[in-house]
Amino acid sequence: MDKFFNPESVAIIGASEKLRFGYFVTKSILSRTDIRSYPVNPNVETVLGVTAYRSVTEIPETVDLAIFLIPSDAALQTMQECAEKGIKHVIILSSGFSESDQIGEERQDAMAAIARENGMRVIGPNCVGVTNMENGFTTAEIPVNRMTRGSLAFIAQSGIFGTAIIDWVTAHKIGVSKVVTLGNKMDVDEIDVMQYLENDKETGVIGLYLEGIREGRGPAFIETFKRVTARKPVLILKSGRTEAGASAVMSHTGTLAGDDLVFDAVVRQTGALRADGIEELLDYARVLTKQPLPQADGVAIITNSGSLGSMACDELQRLEMRLVQFEPRTLEKMKSIAPSWTSVKNPVDIGPAMLMVGKEILELVLQDKNVGCLLLIASVPGIIFTEDGLGLDLIPFYEEYREIMKRYPEKTIIVSSFGDPDMVAAGMKVFDYTGIPLITSVQSAARAIACLYRYRRYRERVQ
Amino acid sequence: MDKFFNPESVAIIGASEKLRFGYFVTKSILSRTDIRSYPVNPNVETVLGVTAYRSVTEIPETVDLAIFLIPSDAALQTMQECAEKGIKHVIILSSGFSESDQIGEERQDAMAAIARENGMRVIGPNCVGVTNMENGFTTAEIPVNRMTRGSLAFIAQSGIFGTAIIDWVTAHKIGVSKVVTLGNKMDVDEIDVMQYLENDKETGVIGLYLEGIREGRGPAFIETFKRVTARKPVLILKSGRTEAGASAVMSHTGTLAGDDLVFDAVVRQTGALRADGIEELLDYARVLTKQPLPQADGVAIITNSGSLGSMACDELQRLEMRLVQFEPRTLEKMKSIAPSWTSVKNPVDIGPAMLMVGKEILELVLQDKNVGCLLLIASVPGIIFTEDGLGLDLIPFYEEYREIMKRYPEKTIIVSSFGDPDMVAAGMKVFDYTGIPLITSVQSAARAIACLYRYRRYRERVQ
Repeated sequence: MDKFFNPESVAIIGASEKLRFGYFVTKSILSRTDIRSYPVNPNVETVLGVTAYRSVTEIPETVDLAIFLIPSDAALQTMQECAEKGIKHVIILSSGFSESDQIGEERQDAMAAIARENGMRVIGPNCVGVTNMENGFTTAEIPVNRMTRGSLAFIAQSGIFGTAIIDWVTAHKIGVSKVVTLGNKMDVDEIDVMQYLENDKETGVIGLYLEGIREGRGPAFIETFKRVTARKPVLILKSGRTEAGASAVMSHTGTLAGDDLVFDAVVRQTGALRADGIEELLDYARVLTKQPLPQADGVAIITNSGSLGSMACDELQRLEMRLVQFEPRTLEKMKSIAPSWTSVKNPVDIGPAMLMVGKEILELVLQDKNVGCLLLIASVPGIIFTEDGLGLDLIPFYEEYREIMKRYPEKTIIVSSFGDPDMVAAGMKVFDYTGIPLITSVQSAARAIACLYRYRRYRERVQ
Repeated sequence: MDKFFNPESVAIIGASEKLRFGYFVTKSILSRTDIRSYPVNPNVETVLGVTAYRSVTEIPETVDLAIFLIPSDAALQTMQECAEKGIKHVIILSSGFSESDQIGEERQDAMAAIARENGMRVIGPNCVGVTNMENGFTTAEIPVNRMTRGSLAFIAQSGIFGTAIIDWVTAHKIGVSKVVTLGNKMDVDEIDVMQYLENDKETGVIGLYLEGIREGRGPAFIETFKRVTARKPVLILKSGRTEAGASAVMSHTGTLAGDDLVFDAVVRQTGALRADGIEELLDYARVLTKQPLPQADGVAIITNSGSLGSMACDELQRLEMRLVQFEPRTLEKMKSIAPSWTSVKNPVDIGPAMLMVGKEILELVLQDKNVGCLLLIASVPGIIFTEDGLGLDLIPFYEEYREIMKRYPEKTIIVSSFGDPDMVAAGMKVFDYTGIPLITSVQSAARAIACLYRYRRYRERVQ
């Protein structure tokens, strides 16, 4: 599998200078100096200044990886030529195969047969292939140079959704190691990729969007995922859960979605964490990549909004999280500094007094040995920071909080902030982008906390 | 109740020039020319250039509404003076009453007794009072001049959360009619406000955040809410659903949360729609204020992402929504214009062909008489519009879609868009701010659609 991510020589079949699908991929690969790349296109002499070959068979050296940008009706012939050339890795970006009609399905099956007979591995068709943040190699039309390198690997099924996730993740500065889109999974599937990521040093957390598991792959899925989750958290989002969804999935990537209850039971056996929606999966990925697993059971809440604090409590209790009982000295000290009208139980509801005593309270809570995880809810009214209000600069105010948090790296900390988007943006900048996840919705924040505890318990059980 | 929203003369008790709690309220009310306002403060001669009175009793004319900005230990005496002055409406913004301790609770009870004996109505304490978008009158520290006037009335319990909602709603350009925060509800509660809003011509949709219903008010709650929901949709978010949440609620506003199952049964009887979180409530409020109720059962999906389309289908089916069966002519026409590799069933998954045939498909779907509601999922990859990509301007592209949608005002239309935040922002501008709600999460969009159908069915049943 490694040649998919670290090829030394690449053939771009169907490469063109025209501004159409595949143009940006061609341009980005041809411009690399660390990879020898060969455009293949019988209709042109050169592509972006590089000599084009009529066929892969004419390329004068070994080719590690072939990328298909050609129409589906030319794919079978090209696959045969790749086999003759001895190419062992192929990524087919084109669509028009098992997801569209009978002819496409037969074509895909014929290509799969060639791959099997010649020991070739194929990603796709109907996908945007791979991205490796370690060397910046990508077959997808995404802004690699704007992406943040980090520990999240993502496996998606299809192109547009995979791209949307990358766009989102890029804007939210989530560090990424590798991205793979599987498309119709004619050969490589999520199990193969998981086996590769298991030992990938760059990858610490794995997220998957799946539409189904291929027939007969159930046992391998369980075995592989079980092994991986014992080392790295694995997050799964699956569609095709209902009849209508399954029918949509079939039209989309020709995948059989299978029974959702069965799938759910399979996932539970493996220790993977299932998310209910893409936002939830990305929240989980954020807290798992940015924060340590909690080391004590108690969850503490500090809030300046009683309403948001109450909602967070509700959701935490619904998810069977344990709200912390503070040590007596923590309670005493908090009482001595907080105004009498605040509530220093858990949640610590200090209302507008957050501006005065918030930092001291924060430090006391983080020092409490019963606190494994802290949820800080800071909902600053617009009047505090807008120009027609007090005009307070939120950034230095938040930074003081962050500096305190950074002194307790063993505590799991999540910030939640609902209200004016400018306030949320300031919080994202100060907290989220520097390692302390900010989740707007208190309910989502509570669910992310539950996810951390769930994975910690699983790890304790299996190790 | 009307004098709370449309007072002709107001006493601001505890008014001060100091930049502290209440300053912006004082400034905003004193600067109005349509309301005669009187600062009351024995320690100063003038407040912002206006003569201050030592006590409300010294004000030389009738006072419609008194606003308390004073510390809780001065409140009882002031209440007595308001009674003597014959003031019938009081808003107490101060905290330090039943939510904090025994003394505070006794003080609140004594004030309630004075109010009862003198036929006074009191909002609060521990709240930010009222906002009326019709005349711009507000007792809250919020940016009324930046808010959009519209049909959503909101009832919240407390200050910071109420303010956070207003900040959010303002940024998202949701049109507001009235906002009321109830605080500890020593007199006026959500039932009183609902009775007022029932006949308020400005209000079309009502949203509430509640922590509990006061003892003995259950029957009045059911009767009033039932009557209102037959005319206007009512959305409820309640915290204190679990033991931990209930305990937090008690510390917050001294409210008894009650059993959540009982509350849920009560809500269901009334036809009000319960939301699970604040984001959900605001999504529901957006679709109900911006879109008509669906006139046919079928929900259609047009998507350029098969994955997001499948997830939307899953959620719609889970919520028992009916996916549309297109009329045969719609299917035929779609097939004749869409590329063969697209899927023109429902969801209509046209992938990247959205750029070519999206508008024609949109028009065909909206013309189909079986379609009551359309969910358009447009997830444009960053490469299409970023500067290092194709640099397409999304605004005119989206505007063409919007113009088609505006030709079918009888159809319920919701847009969903996940990915690059700049793309979402462009969509918000073109669609959401001009009346077609854009909801980022497909699952949330599906839930909002279900909310519209639920209310439509309820209305059909009771009318």
